[in-house]
Amino acid sequence: MENKENDIEAIKKALQKSAEDWSKGDIEGYMNVYWKSNELQFIGKNGITYGWEETYKKYKKNYPNSDHTGQLTFKVLATNYLATNLYSLTGEYYLKREKGDVNGIFTLIFKKIDNNWVIVSDHSQ
Amino acid sequence: MENKENDIEAIKKALQKSAEDWSKGDIEGYMNVYWKSNELQFIGKNGITYGWEETYKKYKKNYPNSDHTGQLTFKVLATNYLATNLYSLTGEYYLKREKGDVNGIFTLIFKKIDNNWVIVSDHSQ
Repeated sequence: MENKENDIEAIKKALQKSAEDWSKGDIEGYMNVYWKSNELQFIGKNGITYGWEETYKKYKKNYPNSDHTGQLTFKVLATNYLATNLYSLTGEYYLKREKGDVNGIFTLIFKKIDNNWVIVSDHSQ
Repeated sequence: MENKENDIEAIKKALQKSAEDWSKGDIEGYMNVYWKSNELQFIGKNGITYGWEETYKKYKKNYPNSDHTGQLTFKVLATNYLATNLYSLTGEYYLKREKGDVNGIFTLIFKKIDNNWVIVSDHSQ
């Protein structure tokens, strides 16, 4: 039974859990919301990073310790039903940290796979 | 009958036509590939612009003449089947113009509506 409100609530909850894990310095926990596939796409200003492992490696390299990871919060701006088990979500991220605060905007494509909501594509800037 | 290769070819063709119209200074022609709906989402660094009309107005304001519009080309980096009549496409844009060249990366969500492929969401940076 499809219920868009429940879907969106579950997606937001998965995203919130991810931010909480990040803020504990747990990048692997944060990465649980991403599709564990070589087809995962992470799009940034320099192009596309393919795959869960590559994305995880980049995060570990760019955020080596808690001075870098800091405290992450998300503000959801829009959620859109695309098709059964498929939504997009646009939001802002705010990273408060020793190394200097960072913020930006992202659009995620969420898909329900094996009963879990996962990000299959993340365009962050 | 679903045929992903044909779908992707049609999507690329619609995008190519859009760039050609832009390069003639025809912003309205360029905008034909966007969903003519108040629900269209255009995501940039400052947030979400909603609706075809608002997006068109912003383009007209930011690109008032051919010194600003210049010559637009796209390079497609990835196309992804999401669901029936639904794809995402990530690419790079290159704008050569008098006012100074600009380039960046974008992720589009394309949907087939009334037998036309239109962009329902554009995250450009």
